Amino acid sequence: MDPARLENLAQQLLDGQLEVAEFVLQLSRGVIADLGVAQVDLDRNRRCGFPEVVYGAGKPPEALVKIFAALLEAEGNALATRVAPEQAELLLGHYPQGHYNALGRTFRIGHTGTEWESGGTIAILTAGTSDLPVAEEAKETALWMGAEVRMIYDVGVAGPHRLPARLAELADVDAVVVIAGMEGALPSVVGGYVPCPVIGVPTSVGYGANLGGVSALLSMLNSCAANVSVVNIDAGFKGAYVAGLIAKNAARNRSR
Amino acid sequence: MDPARLENLAQQLLDGQLEVAEFVLQLSRGVIADLGVAQVDLDRNRRCGFPEVVYGAGKPPEALVKIFAALLEAEGNALATRVAPEQAELLLGHYPQGHYNALGRTFRIGHTGTEWESGGTIAILTAGTSDLPVAEEAKETALWMGAEVRMIYDVGVAGPHRLPARLAELADVDAVVVIAGMEGALPSVVGGYVPCPVIGVPTSVGYGANLGGVSALLSMLNSCAANVSVVNIDAGFKGAYVAGLIAKNAARNRSR
Amino acid sequence: MDPARLENLAQQLLDGQLEVAEFVLQLSRGVIADLGVAQVDLDRNRRCGFPEVVYGAGKPPEALVKIFAALLEAEGNALATRVAPEQAELLLGHYPQGHYNALGRTFRIGHTGTEWESGGTIAILTAGTSDLPVAEEAKETALWMGAEVRMIYDVGVAGPHRLPARLAELADVDAVVVIAGMEGALPSVVGGYVPCPVIGVPTSVGYGANLGGVSALLSMLNSCAANVSVVNIDAGFKGAYVAGLIAKNAARNRSR
Amino acid sequence: MDPARLENLAQQLLDGQLEVAEFVLQLSRGVIADLGVAQVDLDRNRRCGFPEVVYGAGKPPEALVKIFAALLEAEGNALATRVAPEQAELLLGHYPQGHYNALGRTFRIGHTGTEWESGGTIAILTAGTSDLPVAEEAKETALWMGAEVRMIYDVGVAGPHRLPARLAELADVDAVVVIAGMEGALPSVVGGYVPCPVIGVPTSVGYGANLGGVSALLSMLNSCAANVSVVNIDAGFKGAYVAGLIAKNAARNRSR
Amino acid sequence: MDPARLENLAQQLLDGQLEVAEFVLQLSRGVIADLGVAQVDLDRNRRCGFPEVVYGAGKPPEALVKIFAALLEAEGNALATRVAPEQAELLLGHYPQGHYNALGRTFRIGHTGTEWESGGTIAILTAGTSDLPVAEEAKETALWMGAEVRMIYDVGVAGPHRLPARLAELADVDAVVVIAGMEGALPSVVGGYVPCPVIGVPTSVGYGANLGGVSALLSMLNSCAANVSVVNIDAGFKGAYVAGLIAKNAARNRSR
Amino acid sequence: MDPARLENLAQQLLDGQLEVAEFVLQLSRGVIADLGVAQVDLDRNRRCGFPEVVYGAGKPPEALVKIFAALLEAEGNALATRVAPEQAELLLGHYPQGHYNALGRTFRIGHTGTEWESGGTIAILTAGTSDLPVAEEAKETALWMGAEVRMIYDVGVAGPHRLPARLAELADVDAVVVIAGMEGALPSVVGGYVPCPVIGVPTSVGYGANLGGVSALLSMLNSCAANVSVVNIDAGFKGAYVAGLIAKNAARNRSR
Amino acid sequence: MDPARLENLAQQLLDGQLEVAEFVLQLSRGVIADLGVAQVDLDRNRRCGFPEVVYGAGKPPEALVKIFAALLEAEGNALATRVAPEQAELLLGHYPQGHYNALGRTFRIGHTGTEWESGGTIAILTAGTSDLPVAEEAKETALWMGAEVRMIYDVGVAGPHRLPARLAELADVDAVVVIAGMEGALPSVVGGYVPCPVIGVPTSVGYGANLGGVSALLSMLNSCAANVSVVNIDAGFKGAYVAGLIAKNAARNRSR
Amino acid sequence: MDPARLENLAQQLLDGQLEVAEFVLQLSRGVIADLGVAQVDLDRNRRCGFPEVVYGAGKPPEALVKIFAALLEAEGNALATRVAPEQAELLLGHYPQGHYNALGRTFRIGHTGTEWESGGTIAILTAGTSDLPVAEEAKETALWMGAEVRMIYDVGVAGPHRLPARLAELADVDAVVVIAGMEGALPSVVGGYVPCPVIGVPTSVGYGANLGGVSALLSMLNSCAANVSVVNIDAGFKGAYVAGLIAKNAARNRSR
Repeated sequence: MDPARLENLAQQLLDGQLEVAEFVLQLSRGVIADLGVAQVDLDRNRRCGFPEVVYGAGKPPEALVKIFAALLEAEGNALATRVAPEQAELLLGHYPQGHYNALGRTFRIGHTGTEWESGGTIAILTAGTSDLPVAEEAKETALWMGAEVRMIYDVGVAGPHRLPARLAELADVDAVVVIAGMEGALPSVVGGYVPCPVIGVPTSVGYGANLGGVSALLSMLNSCAANVSVVNIDAGFKGAYVAGLIAKNAARNRSR
Repeated sequence: MDPARLENLAQQLLDGQLEVAEFVLQLSRGVIADLGVAQVDLDRNRRCGFPEVVYGAGKPPEALVKIFAALLEAEGNALATRVAPEQAELLLGHYPQGHYNALGRTFRIGHTGTEWESGGTIAILTAGTSDLPVAEEAKETALWMGAEVRMIYDVGVAGPHRLPARLAELADVDAVVVIAGMEGALPSVVGGYVPCPVIGVPTSVGYGANLGGVSALLSMLNSCAANVSVVNIDAGFKGAYVAGLIAKNAARNRSR
Repeated sequence: MDPARLENLAQQLLDGQLEVAEFVLQLSRGVIADLGVAQVDLDRNRRCGFPEVVYGAGKPPEALVKIFAALLEAEGNALATRVAPEQAELLLGHYPQGHYNALGRTFRIGHTGTEWESGGTIAILTAGTSDLPVAEEAKETALWMGAEVRMIYDVGVAGPHRLPARLAELADVDAVVVIAGMEGALPSVVGGYVPCPVIGVPTSVGYGANLGGVSALLSMLNSCAANVSVVNIDAGFKGAYVAGLIAKNAARNRSR
Repeated sequence: MDPARLENLAQQLLDGQLEVAEFVLQLSRGVIADLGVAQVDLDRNRRCGFPEVVYGAGKPPEALVKIFAALLEAEGNALATRVAPEQAELLLGHYPQGHYNALGRTFRIGHTGTEWESGGTIAILTAGTSDLPVAEEAKETALWMGAEVRMIYDVGVAGPHRLPARLAELADVDAVVVIAGMEGALPSVVGGYVPCPVIGVPTSVGYGANLGGVSALLSMLNSCAANVSVVNIDAGFKGAYVAGLIAKNAARNRSR
Repeated sequence: MDPARLENLAQQLLDGQLEVAEFVLQLSRGVIADLGVAQVDLDRNRRCGFPEVVYGAGKPPEALVKIFAALLEAEGNALATRVAPEQAELLLGHYPQGHYNALGRTFRIGHTGTEWESGGTIAILTAGTSDLPVAEEAKETALWMGAEVRMIYDVGVAGPHRLPARLAELADVDAVVVIAGMEGALPSVVGGYVPCPVIGVPTSVGYGANLGGVSALLSMLNSCAANVSVVNIDAGFKGAYVAGLIAKNAARNRSR
Repeated sequence: MDPARLENLAQQLLDGQLEVAEFVLQLSRGVIADLGVAQVDLDRNRRCGFPEVVYGAGKPPEALVKIFAALLEAEGNALATRVAPEQAELLLGHYPQGHYNALGRTFRIGHTGTEWESGGTIAILTAGTSDLPVAEEAKETALWMGAEVRMIYDVGVAGPHRLPARLAELADVDAVVVIAGMEGALPSVVGGYVPCPVIGVPTSVGYGANLGGVSALLSMLNSCAANVSVVNIDAGFKGAYVAGLIAKNAARNRSR
Repeated sequence: MDPARLENLAQQLLDGQLEVAEFVLQLSRGVIADLGVAQVDLDRNRRCGFPEVVYGAGKPPEALVKIFAALLEAEGNALATRVAPEQAELLLGHYPQGHYNALGRTFRIGHTGTEWESGGTIAILTAGTSDLPVAEEAKETALWMGAEVRMIYDVGVAGPHRLPARLAELADVDAVVVIAGMEGALPSVVGGYVPCPVIGVPTSVGYGANLGGVSALLSMLNSCAANVSVVNIDAGFKGAYVAGLIAKNAARNRSR
Repeated sequence: MDPARLENLAQQLLDGQLEVAEFVLQLSRGVIADLGVAQVDLDRNRRCGFPEVVYGAGKPPEALVKIFAALLEAEGNALATRVAPEQAELLLGHYPQGHYNALGRTFRIGHTGTEWESGGTIAILTAGTSDLPVAEEAKETALWMGAEVRMIYDVGVAGPHRLPARLAELADVDAVVVIAGMEGALPSVVGGYVPCPVIGVPTSVGYGANLGGVSALLSMLNSCAANVSVVNIDAGFKGAYVAGLIAKNAARNRSR
């Protein structure tokens, strides 16, 4: 915040021209880009370590364009998830440098961090080939966060040779994202092998009693592996975000 | 009710020409517009303070037209919610003075109250930009009720500066409608700041474990803020109706 | 807040001795009674119109005694809900002037407001005799809020004469609390008769498919009466709080 | 069963040519029309009082045509429910005397009973205009059963004058079918007025927390009115069938 | 209602001394026994064919005693369900002529109807021996209604010989109550054999995925037998009440 | 069935003294032990390969004693599950040769099969030590069926070395019962290693989101291993029964 | 595994060139066909008795083609389930010898086993004609497994003559698959007649309270027949796989 | 693993005395303490960074004593959760140096790590005083892991001043555990302020529609804050374990 403005506000407070509530309100101004129906949080990077990510579902395409403008001006990069093709089309028209991942439904421009900073390393595992769209959302998120990503596909529990064959790739990562539908058992098994946090991402892959992913979600919440925490069904973004945050902090600690 | 008719009925009752049940039935007649498959309640305004509002979903367009005719004749204004575009088209053909809000799916002709009456003041808040359609339904309802409305968009809890920056706008309202999906936390936070009722409207915005809005609904029902009551998922109409009713009664009390 | 302290803090902010975050934090101090595991909100009355109410369930009796001490010192009155007999016993030992309502499980000392202030009028209806404990919690809450209360018992829909016989008592109230279990139909029926807000309180009365009150809760949320909003199952406190808040504001408006 | 065939079978049983199991099996033959993927029960009328009704959903249109042929040959009439337009088209091509009720999705040819038999009297009530499709399915079922039907539309609880105005029409019916969505309160209220069974048909009319009709279903199951029993959501057919069966048996008793 | 009182009320209405609402209210008086927290419906027998039945759960024993006094005075008989032993003890103290069925948890004094009236015939079937308590509640209800009852125990589907051996006993009954827990399949099977209504009573017998009886409830609601309607889980009273009402009306028709 | 009686019945059928329905009914007689509230199926062994097993929950102890008498007389052995200590006490008083497994809540006398018959081999695995009671019920069932049983405890997925260390014991079994609570992942993993059916038994072991075992149940139903089928939560009896039946049939095939 | 390679690996282990973890990993290699996003388990046949079956839903058609190539090369046959028409089209283009069952949504090339091997015998029953698609998936699976299949259609419980007429066909099968929607009662009834395992396949056939098949699923899980185990809703593949596995093992035992 | 034993095993493998499966099995031996019904994983510390933690619920006290003996011998410390008082009593008899936290139901002996190692820093927040037992379980877990813990109590969202007053204490922690019942909104709010992972622990504190904690669980899963992941309801242990693991790895990175 501009020191002159702070001084001015505090003076008004002391002079009784501003009530305390109004003073606090004024302090809040300036860190929000007011776009009418959207209030973009420009202070998020400072508070939380990464800029705001845009949830695209249900937003008018024009609003998305404006939000991207505000974020790009403030941060130089931007990420949106749950972007429908028609929203992506308009975004691409305005930001041809952006990348639309049609499978993962993400729209991304650039990435956070600087060239010489490490974002740490995460692994993203899928139980089956049908979990691919969620894995793509996770991958784009990790790339935006500047993390090094190892993708390990189709190592679900029914084929017991598949995971052990890839364990070596997990030895030095900062966090593991495990994406699985149906019975959602993979995070528990992975959790028994690694000394880092496992973030379980249940998917809606399956039918009948999978109840749209609730079955996998409950499995992961009840995991007997103590290092497993869970995010929402099909939330590839969130799984990768939590892992990427752990990795970024780990990398920062290593570089001190 | 016409006094002459009442006298006539009571006389028949005393003469034994009418059984008590039939007498009571006759008292009920005349306050209902019998349209066959629809029975429009023309006595609602007297009993409840506002005329009947039409639930459009699943009604044949022709039936909607007839219901509007009955309401307009009796009240001079009318509001329908959950109106599909094809229903709206027919309504607009008959009532070109009406307003179809395509986002909020409402069809409205005029408003209740008279020019010089105040309907009080309410605030309508949304947690995110994707809650917009529900907010539009709420806004149209409030306008029909004659309330003054303050729209405050996109002040959900993840950006903690956003709500405090708008609290001053809530200082003098009679009731607050808070519209939120996902974890539905905003009503609890708003409830901790205001001395008036907060009506929570959970929305189906979100995915996976939001279970079509059930997650936000449960949050609001379990709110630790004592001044929060809740209406159905996506029920922008109902949230605004309850708030508008509180505001109308408050304004009437103020004007005495 | 003490003006001298505010001036002092603002000066430190201007002098750079306080960061903005720390300054805001200091502004927050003094309105919370820090009891270690409990942080009593002493600013609630100013912000929300009524002091904090204590949720007794699961709190150590000794902690309840301390919280009551803090509230009594600041407000001169206090209300706790969900108070078990063993908690009540200790409270009564310390505060013999308090009233323990064993059926409603509330512990109350005094009431808010002053002698000459009106808290407005509310009606509390029950569908059946088995809803009594929830009604008692509601009644105690209303009394604490200073509202005039009309209790109307056992007027559920299966006996269709019972509600009409009591409608006159609802004519001039500011809000109605309707407490019902089983199919929870009563709020809809009441809602069709009154020009004020109806707050539905579903109860867990019933068995089998009532699913611990979820059946009545869903009924009320889906009410076709527009003036019905809902609180949690068995939440007599919350139902009466919302009604009492509406009534208090109405009374204030009338007295202006 | 043909007596000669029975004698022949029993003789084989006594001669040891047939095991008991096989004998029982042979007794069962001849009352089933074996159409390969469908086994039409031609003995239903004798056992249960009415012929089999066809559940159309998911059946190949050609199979429907064959099933109708078998039923018409055996019974002279036939009813199918949940018939999609494309199924109806093929049926109408083969049976131009049939009636397709597009709103109620039924296909009906003739009715049961004879001209001079009474099927008793039932009333079918709807809570709202949007319940119409379910009411049409119910009406067609009742007509096929030979019952006299009184349709009473849009008398839900929010408009409290509407039901009393129609109670006289319920005074002499053998059973009442009450069709309601949203909070499903109407059966309880009707149940408090009539001395005959009320069959509640919950509908999926509503949104959000109505959970596809589960809200209305639970309401009706928890009805405080003792004379209410319930059928599946949107099961207009079943509601009318149970009512029509009660009415038919009542009429038979009256005619003895 | 006393004609003199009716005349008096109507005169007041015509004289303007009574508003219409108040007049209707006065008409309602006299058919309710006002016991404070309980309002006993003394008009139920006239409207619905049977007096009010008392739901005992959660009622203070003293209130039960008063309600029984009011019912006995008005009707000469009374039935309460869900009566706990401690409630029964007090009731027996006041009404030693009453019968407490400890397994079925009912308290009953006398029965409805007169000696020479037939209440028709119903059958009550259980799927297993563990369903006995629900069957007892049903039996007591049927006895109170004056119905002839045939008890058929333990004929669930796993033993396929058991039901056929008892079918002859179902040939001439007016209605069948089928009580079953676990998979709740028995009503469907019975429904395929009888020409009268089948009322399914799901029970909470079972464990795990029976979800407290929800499994049996869903089975019965989805029954492919058209003559099956359903009441609440463990609702032996309601199942027998609906059957008894059908039987009573059938007997009345037969006796005309 | 006694041939003389069969001949007699068939003769009556041919003579017209018996209707077909009555004839079939008479055929059914004699294979049921009629104990009033219990109808013991004495034909089960012939039809299904094993005698009836008694579900003890909720049965009066005296009824259990009678049922055991009937089974012992007919079969020479008997098994009851869900037997409470007070039921067991009475049973032991009458049948001191019986064995009450207090942890598994079974009461068993003898076993099926003869000395020289093999009942095949099954393995019973548990995921954790807390699954022990369910495993005991399974073990007793298997012993009663005459199967050879291998118990393998505490080999859940979180400790990945534990299952492989025991795989050799599964190499030659006819079926595997896998008992697991929490996330219920073990059946999927076992399923990937064995060439025989795996019967998953979910348990209620766990807390919170395990929802009384529903979490493990859903996991197993959604298993990506094709050879996994599932029984009810905590149904150690059923899991072992299905496995024992497979094993018995396999052994019979081997011995031909 | 190639012995030379094993020797080489063990030597490296002894020489310290390989860590144990890496050694185990190397042992795993070679039994997996690494196709990038898919890891095909080529060792399944050896471990589990049948090759991997492909779950088609959500897989890119190109990936399906590659997976089929890997399976055909290794096994000479392949089966995929949940194959959409557009996936089938591409598969048929590459593998014209394959068979696409459009109703059952399976794609199959050849079958397992050799000409002279018996895969045993299974029966597949459906409750109704609408269960046909699930039955087709089951039939294709059984054919691929080399089992002899008996299809028995439309023998649900509402028509009680239909199942007994077909019982003789079940006398000598190794396992029975019972496919049923709505109340899902058929497996319990079949279970009471046969001495072999019954695998229940609940289907989503029905509406309203069938909750997408959950009703039938719960019924089957709570079956009072001890020989019933259950698979996922609409899982015709799994039901047939478990039955086919039992049958195959039985046939192997018979042929020893 | 002992190198001599490894050499010996590998030699046997090369000599053909051991099959590959048996060889792998032998490699697994020695890292498991075989206690019969319990198989203690002594290799967990090496693989996962921390020793196995014991889930006490439902374990026989004697088994707990043996498991503690095995863990203490191998690790020198041990932690058990969900320990009932009677289990604790026996443990304390054997291990008087242990600490039983009666509120948190944990039994702990010593801690992991060495004196000079840092386990990093975590904060544990509760929304309300009633969440205390879960917080105690979390605290004990963190202490066992060697983390520095900051406890911050009763800062739920209804009192908006309470969290800001404590934010400074969160500035430098490695991870935050947020424990909240009712609407579970606190993790979202905290997530908006901190640059580290937030692990949400929903609690069962509340009543009615909190559904045993499901309400708070769903809130946290749907959090709009990207840095929030979730563990099971009341899983204080798991929340602290994930946080402690992040903190430990962070501390290790800092110390390099």
